[in-house]
Order: sequence, then C-alpha cells, then structure tokens
Amino acid sequence: MSKLLDDVVGELTRLPGIGRRTAFRLAMYMLRMERDEVRRMTAAMDDFRQNIMYCKFCNNLSDTDVCPICLDERRDRTTVCVVEQVGDVVSIENTRQYKGLYHVLGGVISPMQGIGPSDLKIDLLLENIGRGEIREVILAVSATVEGETTQFYIMRRLEGLLEGVAGEINITCIARGIGFGDELEYADELTIAHAIHNRTKMK
Amino acid sequence: MSKLLDDVVGELTRLPGIGRRTAFRLAMYMLRMERDEVRRMTAAMDDFRQNIMYCKFCNNLSDTDVCPICLDERRDRTTVCVVEQVGDVVSIENTRQYKGLYHVLGGVISPMQGIGPSDLKIDLLLENIGRGEIREVILAVSATVEGETTQFYIMRRLEGLLEGVAGEINITCIARGIGFGDELEYADELTIAHAIHNRTKMK
Repeated sequence: MSKLLDDVVGELTRLPGIGRRTAFRLAMYMLRMERDEVRRMTAAMDDFRQNIMYCKFCNNLSDTDVCPICLDERRDRTTVCVVEQVGDVVSIENTRQYKGLYHVLGGVISPMQGIGPSDLKIDLLLENIGRGEIREVILAVSATVEGETTQFYIMRRLEGLLEGVAGEINITCIARGIGFGDELEYADELTIAHAIHNRTKMK
Repeated sequence: MSKLLDDVVGELTRLPGIGRRTAFRLAMYMLRMERDEVRRMTAAMDDFRQNIMYCKFCNNLSDTDVCPICLDERRDRTTVCVVEQVGDVVSIENTRQYKGLYHVLGGVISPMQGIGPSDLKIDLLLENIGRGEIREVILAVSATVEGETTQFYIMRRLEGLLEGVAGEINITCIARGIGFGDELEYADELTIAHAIHNRTKMK
C-alpha cells in the first residue's frame, strides 16, 4: 500500500528473528517516536557499522585500532583468555573476576558451516604469545563439538610454538561441570561423568 | 567497552520487545551485513519516519496526502469500514473480500490509557459520511471492552448525524462468534452465548 511502509518492513525483516509481523509492529512503534529519536537510532546503527574496528591485537570490537582492554596498563598482561566471540568478552567482563587480556577467535572450527582454522584469528593469537609476555593461556570456548575441536586444534598449534618460547607457559581450560541452578536430573551423562571425575575437595 | 557498540545497543533497546541481549545480537548480525545493506536499512527507517503521511480522508498511512485506496476509482465508494489501526486495514486487504473504503480511527477509547473520543479521528469520519456518498458504515473494531465502548460512542454520534442526511445509511458490525480453528472448550461464555443467539441457517 504505502511504499515507505513496505520498504521499512522489508528492510527490517533482514534482521534475524524479525518477521513481517514484528517488523510492522516496530514500524508502527517508530511512528510514536519523535523524528529525531528515530534519526538518532539510525545514526547509531550506521555509525556502528561504518566505523567499528577490530583490535589489531585481540580482535575484539573497538572504536580504535587497539582496544581499551589491550591498552589498559592495570590489566594483567601475562594472561590471555581465548574466547569465540565478542559477546563472550562482555559475559566474562560482567563477572568482574578476570583481569587479564582477551583474544577473540571470531568463531569456532565448523566443517558443517565451512569454517576452517584459517577463518579464525589463531595466527594472531600465536603471534601475540610469541612476543613472550604471556604466561597463561586460558581456553574459554564452548563445550560443544565445534568448541572442543577448536580447542584441540589450538592446543596442537600452541605445543608447536611453546618449544621455541623461553620460560613456561600454562595452558588451562575453564572448568566444565554442572552449572549453578542446573538440576542433575537434566544434565547429560558426559557432563555428570566429567563432574564426578573432576570433583573438587570441599574446605 | 566500545562506545559505538554501546550506543547502537542502547538505541535499539528503545524498540518494543528488544532487550539488551537481542540488541547485542542484532548489532553482531549487522557486522555480517554489508555496510551498504545497513545503510539501506537505516535509510528506509528514516525515510519512513520523516516522510510518511496520514491520508486526509481515511487517516490511513500514505506516501501522499490522499492514500491509494481513497484515490482508487474501482473501489466501492458507498461503503466505509471503520477500523482501529493501520494494521487492521492490511489484515482486511489480505482477505481480498472487501472492496470499499476504510476509515482508520487511530485507536480505541480507553479511559485507563487516557484516550478519549477527541483523540480518535471520529469527526473526520462523520465529515466524510456527511458528504452523502456513503450508504453503509461497517464497524470493524475489536470485541474488547474498549472496542465496544468506541463502537457504542460512534453509533451514538452517527445516529445524531443520520437525521440530517438524505437517504438511508446502514450501520453494520462485523460478525462476532467462534473463530475458525477455535475450540469451543476454550471459548468464553459471552462468545458462546452470542454465537448461539446469532446462529445462521445452514444451506
């Protein structure tokens, strides 16, 4: 009917999880927003897409070519936490438990989706470690088949690298087990088996 | 962390049904879109918000001051279907069963939300009917308390108007009853009582 309406609905449905009904509802909501509010929103979207960068050290999203975490002198520069994606950095930062650096792989190895090791920022990770400051590499990828594969691949690459690096470097993996709030009844066998095998002593 | 990311997430959460998690997911998705694709999407949003108009006759959304339906000479100009909102026009048009004109009220009377008769385009409706071409007014508002109140109010106003208009004008209301696919078990008493009372003869 209205080309303007059709266009905005069509464009919004490109986004994941937004069908025609939701897109229409969003368009109707935009009519109740001030014109300037809508302009501010679209400007933020454009700005983000046009100007966001990836940190040249850790591959995290950044407004500058080196991200604030890599620049922060108060952070522990001897530890690097390897994660799949930007969202994982946010999740870990929110815990306020970790003070080291990050390394964002940009995905996991997934032959099904055609993602191989060369599509991930693994060389950059080895390059950073090769600089010699890192003493611990924490692998914090998902406990999925793809995550485990990626972890295994990185381990192999690291082993090769570590022979040529001075001093010891620990490689650790975040704990696997029963999540807080999870019921044992619904946990899978592999998780339970691992959780029993890796039980920790109570004080 | 990244101001660009923070901004786009903050702006997107203004939209209904979009929390921080979804906004973040949308932002990440935008990174996988081409820059031009994002620009086309934001341009469509801006264009829509800045340039959309309301038809001066029927109050439907329109790219021009009179909408294509009101301009369409092939439509039945003696019938007007009164609906709450723009989405209802789309729903009825999709049935391809109706060939008359529309009138979009822009809401329903709702004292709880502070919406009175003067907030709706009721005067414009009476003005259109007063022009003398309309022979049937179909009331197609929701079967809610607010919808019924609005319907009752419009009926009262129409009665006053019709005394001064030449020729007969029918006022009808869309059928209430059990929707197709609805189970009787879950229908409320009022709907069932109405459906029995207004039973139709089978051929």
